[in-house]
Amino acid sequence: MLQSTSDPVALVADMGRRARAAATQIARLPTSHKCKALMTAAAAVRDSAATILAANAEDMADGRTNGLSPAMLDRLALNSERLEAMAAGIEAVAQLRDPVGMVIDEAIRPNGLKLSRVRVPLGVVGIIYESRPNVTADAAALCLKSGNAVILRGGSEASRSNRAIHAALSAGLAKADVPVDAIQLVPTTDRAAVGAMLAAHGLIDIIVPRGGKALVARVQEDARVPVLAHLDGICHTYIDVDADPAKAKQIAVNAKMRRTGVCGATETLLIDRKFAEPLPILAALIDAGCAIRGDATTVALEPRAEAAEDSDWETEYLDAIISVRFVDSVEGAIGHIAAYGSGHTDAIVTENAATAEIFLSAVDSAIVMHNASTQFADGAEFGLGAEIGIATGRLHARGPVALEGLTTYKWLVRGTGQIRP
Amino acid sequence: MLQSTSDPVALVADMGRRARAAATQIARLPTSHKCKALMTAAAAVRDSAATILAANAEDMADGRTNGLSPAMLDRLALNSERLEAMAAGIEAVAQLRDPVGMVIDEAIRPNGLKLSRVRVPLGVVGIIYESRPNVTADAAALCLKSGNAVILRGGSEASRSNRAIHAALSAGLAKADVPVDAIQLVPTTDRAAVGAMLAAHGLIDIIVPRGGKALVARVQEDARVPVLAHLDGICHTYIDVDADPAKAKQIAVNAKMRRTGVCGATETLLIDRKFAEPLPILAALIDAGCAIRGDATTVALEPRAEAAEDSDWETEYLDAIISVRFVDSVEGAIGHIAAYGSGHTDAIVTENAATAEIFLSAVDSAIVMHNASTQFADGAEFGLGAEIGIATGRLHARGPVALEGLTTYKWLVRGTGQIRP
Repeated sequence: MLQSTSDPVALVADMGRRARAAATQIARLPTSHKCKALMTAAAAVRDSAATILAANAEDMADGRTNGLSPAMLDRLALNSERLEAMAAGIEAVAQLRDPVGMVIDEAIRPNGLKLSRVRVPLGVVGIIYESRPNVTADAAALCLKSGNAVILRGGSEASRSNRAIHAALSAGLAKADVPVDAIQLVPTTDRAAVGAMLAAHGLIDIIVPRGGKALVARVQEDARVPVLAHLDGICHTYIDVDADPAKAKQIAVNAKMRRTGVCGATETLLIDRKFAEPLPILAALIDAGCAIRGDATTVALEPRAEAAEDSDWETEYLDAIISVRFVDSVEGAIGHIAAYGSGHTDAIVTENAATAEIFLSAVDSAIVMHNASTQFADGAEFGLGAEIGIATGRLHARGPVALEGLTTYKWLVRGTGQIRP
Repeated sequence: MLQSTSDPVALVADMGRRARAAATQIARLPTSHKCKALMTAAAAVRDSAATILAANAEDMADGRTNGLSPAMLDRLALNSERLEAMAAGIEAVAQLRDPVGMVIDEAIRPNGLKLSRVRVPLGVVGIIYESRPNVTADAAALCLKSGNAVILRGGSEASRSNRAIHAALSAGLAKADVPVDAIQLVPTTDRAAVGAMLAAHGLIDIIVPRGGKALVARVQEDARVPVLAHLDGICHTYIDVDADPAKAKQIAVNAKMRRTGVCGATETLLIDRKFAEPLPILAALIDAGCAIRGDATTVALEPRAEAAEDSDWETEYLDAIISVRFVDSVEGAIGHIAAYGSGHTDAIVTENAATAEIFLSAVDSAIVMHNASTQFADGAEFGLGAEIGIATGRLHARGPVALEGLTTYKWLVRGTGQIRP
């Protein structure tokens, strides 16, 4: 069914109402029915491979004409391998444990009332994302499995790819007798539609932005609907006086250099002034191709390091650059992280269990690690299956957000006629 | 320390920064230390009884001069009995289980990483409330016990009472070596301070409004900070065809008439058309002093009922008035509640377990009950101890919100040197 796309507010309102109606239905679907729909949707993606790849080729041609960067073109590109991964991803979500109906806790009151808190879907989820067309399938699968309807708004550069993937998903849902309005794609690239989604209080229950910092910042700034996201991943690794030098070196290099463009990459290395062997760590980073922006101690120790400016402590490089600062003990590290961190992921390296527990307790980030690389900050690594994103806000869900984060709960009270005195 | 109150935005910003600093400290306090502070605070309230009652007498005198309604004056009034209840309430919170540090779940990954999710305080809580001065002590106690700093903004009509109670609480905290900035009272009655709190994104983590619908509506409309609240309590009781008639009558009368002014009071009675004995229920309500606004079936059955208008289905009377509608089976009730309910508390009365489960599953409210009075919608009745409020939003916490609702969680990852491949 095509709707007018001339008025984005009316368009989003109409989509929202249809999403709400679908959400009411899919909230009550048994797990087996949702799984079946995901399996038929995955099959439909495979069956539509030629159509999807043809649509993607057109997007890629436009992207080259419009001068998209090689990195953006790579994110946009689909091929049969990536399409198979997309279908397999949907099937993997089908196999994840269904959070809906899970009992969080139960109690029996002295008057005999039986209380239980059970997980229920959030309702209608809005996803606003950029060039990667696989988000269309990933996000739709996670929302459906958790009993939520979803309104997807992808980037204009991927619009043909997204429409083709969405058409396949819709065909899959229809084949499994699941309302197609459960997965809707905003059919216009008009940017006003994003504004309409952000303002759709009461129609959309939560917005999840997936993309670069500019997108997330705009969404967080303008949204009247709650947002689940992280703006920055200014992650720290702190090398304590009691760190094992070999472990520290290995973790520091991995935390920064395994992949520099991910949100869990360490951006600042903090080193206890009393730690005996800092130089091998600095040298290993530089040898691995990393530039160092350090404080005076760092620069004195490792001549290849540049001097850091104050702004370095609050910079997410997402690149082969690291800032390095020497601090006084674990409390100095905790203070630096409280002042400059973004609440994402921070790690301590130490063989001293007591110091580790001080750090784990005092650092107020979504993820706090001991003797591990910050690059583990990822829903799959945490065993959650796919993730819808990583959240640094303090409400509802923090850290990697997967199926459970797409649910809320309700209280069930079972009585035998109790009235309140 | 006195601060300038001429600029409410600067004032709230300064309070927010001091609250954040205090929050960082009290987040790490052991349970025993927080309990001790609450006990000394309760003692300080008792010790300050004369001062508090004198301040309250001045507020009451002003209130009479300013023509406050008898109901408002009653909410404002303190006496030695109410003051003792306030102190005992603080002591009761001291005895509640501390949620901070509780492990929500744990897992060990195949690579040996140990994951745990532990509860941590939200941070800085803002409470905006009206005439009841006891909220000053109740809310402060709940926030301190859950490791949060709190910024309290009470009604101007209770300003002297609130200042006196706050001074006593501060003295109690100081005696227990807890930073007094953990419990701050906005020292101005300038309404612009409320606006500054609602806009204090990054300084205040959550706002809890406590008061009438106008206050809650303003807060929900204007807040840029997340809000935990309910706007309406349009609660339903549905009498199914398989309801026990005696139980149904008793529950319906209690759900409406036990206290008509509470948010858990039933406002609409839904009755299955096939239910055999509706008239005794309608008669019992009227005999108990309740006015009925009913649909055509109701009016035909009980001549003392008035005809309902469409607006009655979305009205929270908070009074001895009930709307009554006959519906087609449990699905009719579910549909009516989806259309007109406020997501607070809804109940079914039936002896049919299968029908009850359909209702419990399909009604998407914060609290859904079977064979019990909606008046049980209360944190104390749920065994949560004191409650900070009842929330009908879908995120973070729903239904009665107590200590746990004032926390979030973080992920702790304990490793032995793992790096990510």
